[in-house]
Amino acid sequence: MTILASAQEPGTTHVVHPGADGAGAVRRSVLPGGLRVITETMPTVRSAAFGIWAGVGSRDEAPADAGASHYLEHVLFKGTRRRSALEISAAIDAVGGDLNAFTAKEYTCYYARVLDADLPLAVDVVSDMVAASVNRPEDVESERGVILEEIHMRDDDPGDLIHDEFSTALYGDAPLGRPILGTVESINVLSRDRIHAYYREHYVPENLVVAVAGNIDHDEVVRLVARAFEGHLDGAAHPRAPRLDGTPQPASPTVRVVDKDTEQAHVVLGGVGVSRTDDRRFALGVLNAALGGGMSSRLFQEVREKRGLAYSVYSYTSQYADTGVFGVYAGCQTAKVDEVLAICRDEVAKAAEKGITDEELERGKGQLRGAMVLGLEDTGSRMSRIGKSELVYESLLAVDEVLSRIEAVTPDDVREVAADVLAGPQALTVIGPFGDRDFSL
Amino acid sequence: MTILASAQEPGTTHVVHPGADGAGAVRRSVLPGGLRVITETMPTVRSAAFGIWAGVGSRDEAPADAGASHYLEHVLFKGTRRRSALEISAAIDAVGGDLNAFTAKEYTCYYARVLDADLPLAVDVVSDMVAASVNRPEDVESERGVILEEIHMRDDDPGDLIHDEFSTALYGDAPLGRPILGTVESINVLSRDRIHAYYREHYVPENLVVAVAGNIDHDEVVRLVARAFEGHLDGAAHPRAPRLDGTPQPASPTVRVVDKDTEQAHVVLGGVGVSRTDDRRFALGVLNAALGGGMSSRLFQEVREKRGLAYSVYSYTSQYADTGVFGVYAGCQTAKVDEVLAICRDEVAKAAEKGITDEELERGKGQLRGAMVLGLEDTGSRMSRIGKSELVYESLLAVDEVLSRIEAVTPDDVREVAADVLAGPQALTVIGPFGDRDFSL
Repeated sequence: MTILASAQEPGTTHVVHPGADGAGAVRRSVLPGGLRVITETMPTVRSAAFGIWAGVGSRDEAPADAGASHYLEHVLFKGTRRRSALEISAAIDAVGGDLNAFTAKEYTCYYARVLDADLPLAVDVVSDMVAASVNRPEDVESERGVILEEIHMRDDDPGDLIHDEFSTALYGDAPLGRPILGTVESINVLSRDRIHAYYREHYVPENLVVAVAGNIDHDEVVRLVARAFEGHLDGAAHPRAPRLDGTPQPASPTVRVVDKDTEQAHVVLGGVGVSRTDDRRFALGVLNAALGGGMSSRLFQEVREKRGLAYSVYSYTSQYADTGVFGVYAGCQTAKVDEVLAICRDEVAKAAEKGITDEELERGKGQLRGAMVLGLEDTGSRMSRIGKSELVYESLLAVDEVLSRIEAVTPDDVREVAADVLAGPQALTVIGPFGDRDFSL
Repeated sequence: MTILASAQEPGTTHVVHPGADGAGAVRRSVLPGGLRVITETMPTVRSAAFGIWAGVGSRDEAPADAGASHYLEHVLFKGTRRRSALEISAAIDAVGGDLNAFTAKEYTCYYARVLDADLPLAVDVVSDMVAASVNRPEDVESERGVILEEIHMRDDDPGDLIHDEFSTALYGDAPLGRPILGTVESINVLSRDRIHAYYREHYVPENLVVAVAGNIDHDEVVRLVARAFEGHLDGAAHPRAPRLDGTPQPASPTVRVVDKDTEQAHVVLGGVGVSRTDDRRFALGVLNAALGGGMSSRLFQEVREKRGLAYSVYSYTSQYADTGVFGVYAGCQTAKVDEVLAICRDEVAKAAEKGITDEELERGKGQLRGAMVLGLEDTGSRMSRIGKSELVYESLLAVDEVLSRIEAVTPDDVREVAADVLAGPQALTVIGPFGDRDFSL
């Protein structure tokens, strides 16, 4: 029987999935303070991916703190009690590892991928960054300029900018509507003390998950992590339960036009999808594959293959604790924006009304299944799957369970989710040289 | 003893590297017509990467054909005697595989990554695309619009555009100076007949390499490829020798300023590096790692860590048959462009004069070594390594040979290549709202 992390006693180890033939076993230990260590063994590889996941993201920010989660992620690379910024990066560079981090709306992840023999080093360096950051005022200052440049770089790439603009079109000024990077204004006023308080508040053992995948031994990893976190494991006794009870975001979809002197028109059309724990997520995945998930999808065929109107056109879904997003992106000639939008609206409406064909259903299942299995050869993907799942789900689905949930999707399931999601309230974002032109849904 | 591909008799198989413990063996067969099939066995994975590499790229284009290699790459997805565009993409989507292609200056690659059981399908589909494309006039027409949108998308992303502009700054109107995508003007005039003639000229068996890595059996792959290419193997008897004797490009470095209403200034500063077969390439790799290859590098430390002037700053190298490129990129506030350029110039000059420290040498070697070994867990990376090498080198270095070449780099080697490459003629490209402002080297 699966034990929920929030109910697992500190000091114990639980076999989450036994695996098969010595591979794929997933084990979780809870350390004092509620720090979780979850591992997956891959005995045929010679590397390991080590990640620390913090249950905090831009969604947790008050308006005045907008961008604090991501700002903090940068500052954690700047130095600890034991290491300078250069010593942190040099340690991992010297063994040819990848060291990086990313901030999302509901979590933040720091990770290193290294040869298996270098795992003790990766555990020591990444844990030190996360547990013992000093957040010196001068480092917070110099990183402010870096983040402002990251914002400007995002602004210079309309294919990137449009997704932030679309979040705002869909969720308005609610936390999920604000950009992860913050704004020039919010970054300019975030103080070192505020960043440090944010760190102390959210980077507590019960809100962290250590995830490791590769040619590793669970007990050895637990020993290394316990040593690396020594002196930092004095928080609550049990891991924090996942964020499941967030108040649904009051989406107030709108049309948002960003006037910009670009060559292409960039558009996103979409609306509210399903949450991470919604049973309909597998059917929505199949629907998304058929509508805009690959080269054989309807949108790719109609917009690109048949009419040559776009290079990049696709649909996508995102899931959060209590809501989700469904969107269609296209980049096209500015003069063709109405034609492209009309095709996208038409395809969305057709799928909302009639669902997809049996052939598309089978193909969509094959796409999800293949992508899942092919993705599992990589230590980084496995680490991400178990680390993120541990943080955001009550229990980790085994790979076989996921595959059978995909297999079980019926035409009716797809029709129902299509009718719900594709016919729901819709938002539209357009970037291009359109001045104050009106676009309507 | 290694047999060069161009000397290997059709109908024979050659063990290029024996591998160890049943893994990593590299074998090459030459089919009638000179088609090469090179494979690497990875018995512990459950997938396979299948690629076809054509020895043609933008460098082979006359000015009037600019963009033809890449245009053709697109058209090959549009249909064969047996399959429509939809049937091509649907076949691979249905098994959850990745199907894609890319065009470079000296080669073009089509590939699919699939579960091992689906390899026969991938061989059939990708071989069909490459060997039996029909290039219908209406497909060439509709794809013209797609490529124009790809060019516009590139133009909308200054971090991408700058690398094309820098090639032009360095090589001028020579083939290596022209963008792989072609220009709006050249794409608008390329006719179906020209594209088709280009296909007939370059997609001949002796100019193609089939590369496969994963859980595969060499003889079985050869059988599948022979069947898929049936009726298309009537070219010259021996594989074409690699492009080694190209006339060195007459680089005429210059300063190129692109006036664009961007938030950031984007700059590339650099010059001519070393060719693909130049023995100094390993030393240049170590130098590049130390100067701008990672977070512990001098440029990252000076520009980002210490001064917070950029989010993205790095150096890079590219290699071609007879020349190469060394470059430094930074994106920064427009008001700080002179300061950032001064720091980059200063770091380049310091390294040109004094080389790097012993610590940087060891760290740079570790970076190259680790990146190489970590990259080899992925079937796609292994397929690319053997496929590209087979096409562009006379012989494939075993992984251990590459590692020992890296290990053998001395401080003097780095000093010498730094003095040669970093002090050579330099080009500069700047994108930003600078009007006709003068920038000097």
